[in-house]
Amino acid sequence: MTPLRINLEAEDIPIRWYNVVADMATPPPPPLGSDGKPIAPEAMMAIFPGPILEQEMSAQRWIAIPEQVRQVYAQWRPSPLCRALRLEQMLGTPAKIFYKYEGVSPAGSHKPNSAVPQAYYNKLAGTKRLTTETGAGQWGSSIAYAGQMFGLPVRVYMVKVSYQQKPFRRSMMQTWGAEVFASPTDRTQAGRNVLARDPKSPGSLGIAISEAVEEAAADPDVCYTLGSVLNHVLLHQTVIGLEAKKQFEKIGLYPDVIYGPCGGGSSFGGIAFPFLADKFAGEKRAANLRCVAVEPTSCPTLTQGAYAYDYGDASGYTPIMKMYTLGHDFVPPGIHAGGLRYHGDSPLVSKLLHEKHLEALAVPQVATFAAGVDFARAEGIVPAPESCHAIRAAIDEALRCKQSGQPRTILFNLTGHGHFDMASFDKYLSGQLEDYAYPREAIEQSLAGLPKVGS
Amino acid sequence: MTPLRINLEAEDIPIRWYNVVADMATPPPPPLGSDGKPIAPEAMMAIFPGPILEQEMSAQRWIAIPEQVRQVYAQWRPSPLCRALRLEQMLGTPAKIFYKYEGVSPAGSHKPNSAVPQAYYNKLAGTKRLTTETGAGQWGSSIAYAGQMFGLPVRVYMVKVSYQQKPFRRSMMQTWGAEVFASPTDRTQAGRNVLARDPKSPGSLGIAISEAVEEAAADPDVCYTLGSVLNHVLLHQTVIGLEAKKQFEKIGLYPDVIYGPCGGGSSFGGIAFPFLADKFAGEKRAANLRCVAVEPTSCPTLTQGAYAYDYGDASGYTPIMKMYTLGHDFVPPGIHAGGLRYHGDSPLVSKLLHEKHLEALAVPQVATFAAGVDFARAEGIVPAPESCHAIRAAIDEALRCKQSGQPRTILFNLTGHGHFDMASFDKYLSGQLEDYAYPREAIEQSLAGLPKVGS
Repeated sequence: MTPLRINLEAEDIPIRWYNVVADMATPPPPPLGSDGKPIAPEAMMAIFPGPILEQEMSAQRWIAIPEQVRQVYAQWRPSPLCRALRLEQMLGTPAKIFYKYEGVSPAGSHKPNSAVPQAYYNKLAGTKRLTTETGAGQWGSSIAYAGQMFGLPVRVYMVKVSYQQKPFRRSMMQTWGAEVFASPTDRTQAGRNVLARDPKSPGSLGIAISEAVEEAAADPDVCYTLGSVLNHVLLHQTVIGLEAKKQFEKIGLYPDVIYGPCGGGSSFGGIAFPFLADKFAGEKRAANLRCVAVEPTSCPTLTQGAYAYDYGDASGYTPIMKMYTLGHDFVPPGIHAGGLRYHGDSPLVSKLLHEKHLEALAVPQVATFAAGVDFARAEGIVPAPESCHAIRAAIDEALRCKQSGQPRTILFNLTGHGHFDMASFDKYLSGQLEDYAYPREAIEQSLAGLPKVGS
Repeated sequence: MTPLRINLEAEDIPIRWYNVVADMATPPPPPLGSDGKPIAPEAMMAIFPGPILEQEMSAQRWIAIPEQVRQVYAQWRPSPLCRALRLEQMLGTPAKIFYKYEGVSPAGSHKPNSAVPQAYYNKLAGTKRLTTETGAGQWGSSIAYAGQMFGLPVRVYMVKVSYQQKPFRRSMMQTWGAEVFASPTDRTQAGRNVLARDPKSPGSLGIAISEAVEEAAADPDVCYTLGSVLNHVLLHQTVIGLEAKKQFEKIGLYPDVIYGPCGGGSSFGGIAFPFLADKFAGEKRAANLRCVAVEPTSCPTLTQGAYAYDYGDASGYTPIMKMYTLGHDFVPPGIHAGGLRYHGDSPLVSKLLHEKHLEALAVPQVATFAAGVDFARAEGIVPAPESCHAIRAAIDEALRCKQSGQPRTILFNLTGHGHFDMASFDKYLSGQLEDYAYPREAIEQSLAGLPKVGS
């Protein structure tokens, strides 16, 4: 029997996360307040607990994973590394295609990798309740699950239009015991302000963030959690790449190229950074390794944005961070990979891309679903629309290998399953999906609105 | 770290299925035609391929699993055996609770365990296309997946009301390349007859079966597949119990009681029979083992039905089989565990129950969802409504252990995840679910319609 699934044992779950900051030539630029001055850690203590802030600021290469976190990880980790042999055969490529499958988690994506330690550290720090925002519900359901694992109540501000149109992840959060509110609510000043202007507001991620942050800032017992972008989230996600390295060692291979979908950057950093560490360490096997972030052409942050200081949210409530951005006013079209609809990107991914340690690639929506359907038919797993971006890039790479005859080893991050996204596949299969590309002038216009500090 | 997930390696995937018929004191009563005479195997050849029929009739104890089937199984098998430690703690029970988790398959349930070999043997026998019927889509999606794995086109007749109201499993089948028709269709005589009487017919499983069987019977290149009830389906499902036994051996334990949800009986037989084999062999460890089939009070086949010859379908198209039945006219209420809404049961499970080798238990709907939510909050996995029946029984057993102080080892079959059933959890959480129990007179009335042959 050809071993197509490379498993590890529970004891192989990493005992420490990898912090790429330790290997950067210069430290990442600090987050700034709207006055242009670096934010003091104390200012963030209102919404984040100490241990999380410490990780956010850390330059230490390895950070121990608490046993209690590994115990919860063990419910689904180590996740499998799979050889996509049927896909290779379907494509007729000499390339070897592997995927790391994160859809095996309870919430069905990589998100619990960070939700679990965030809930754990909050519990440890005495937090009594967590808040967060969610769009379609990937992060919301992960933190609902993780909060439940550590006995922490969770309140989720869910964008109203998603709350109404995508009820199933809401039900999942409620099944896990979370309170879910359709945002804007009348529970916060931010929400009330919006409702006063527009009682029928469908909500937005920006508004939901403001509500969740406001509740956390106002109550010392409450902390806020974020599912991507920030350094500590990328740190937690490195379990993906650390396991994948061990799995490749088990079969005596090493990837030539790694593709990961990239929205806020956490799953991409999670799979890429531990391999990048080999490159930083001058390891021969990693000398020609390429790590490629794959984003939608409809939200081309890394490929068409500016590397500049910008707000993390649409409303300008958050600190200003140096990152690739399309401008915080940029409103991407309603594509089906909701997790990739973000105007900015992780400051760590951004810096490493700017310094050419990483690459970026944009792919159009319809082609990603075509790749996702090919993958589902070959490998039997229905992928999340976000994951379809990496699949598209991996298939294109494999087809180039077919042309050139090069037997490259390709790794991609299959970040989640598509069980809650079947309506999108339906649209694709019935020919109703469209591609979107932003005219360059629209991006220029949005970039003109960048804050005038820190540049 | 407490090992809560007992994994096996790919080489531990069973190399043979266990056939409980070999251990029965008397052979199972043969299926009869409507004339009351045993059906000749040749008569079944019109809709089933030779190797499948051979398994259906076999009394051989062990039947080899082809390598090509094991290769596909290896995508998700061996499935994990998990210790529900958090649930035990939540209940405060001295019992040890384990579950075998079949939701890790591509289709999200145990169904591919039989869909894969059925597709394989059909391919081997030269079948050019498969047909089947499906209600909510669990079986349809599994055979769509399995057909794709062996390059066999699949046509699914999906009950029209489900086709319209539960579009997501339909999308999944189509993503896997299957053709899905809303039944009744005008493609078959059976469908046209229904439509002539009622152009707006919402369809039924009985009508969909008739359409799928008619297409298979009319075309020598087409075969029909069934997802439960028949002997060969239960045979294939024994991989569940065979793996579980190996996993218990790994940790030096053995279950005192096994609970599985029971509709057509395949997942229940799959987990129970390999353990029952130990009992038949006189093994000491199995001396006090109890295997309990759990069904809904709204469709109490095993607990209130008759052990008698009856049709497998509502319309009387199939052979007559000796089984527990509520009568083929019995129409269960529209409960949310669609997989358990069947008037009959597996002839093998029925015979073993009749001979008191197995037990049966009926539980009401609302209590099963309550158990499912408790389980989701403790263990992090949202279970399928069918699985919730076994969870209810396992929790009740654990609570009895709490009363008695007995540290029993409980095993239940977590047959699938509930990702496509969130609307049902929504109803439960908002207090809209109801219990149904059939008045005994209604059951008597339905039983009065049993065929007058073979009794």
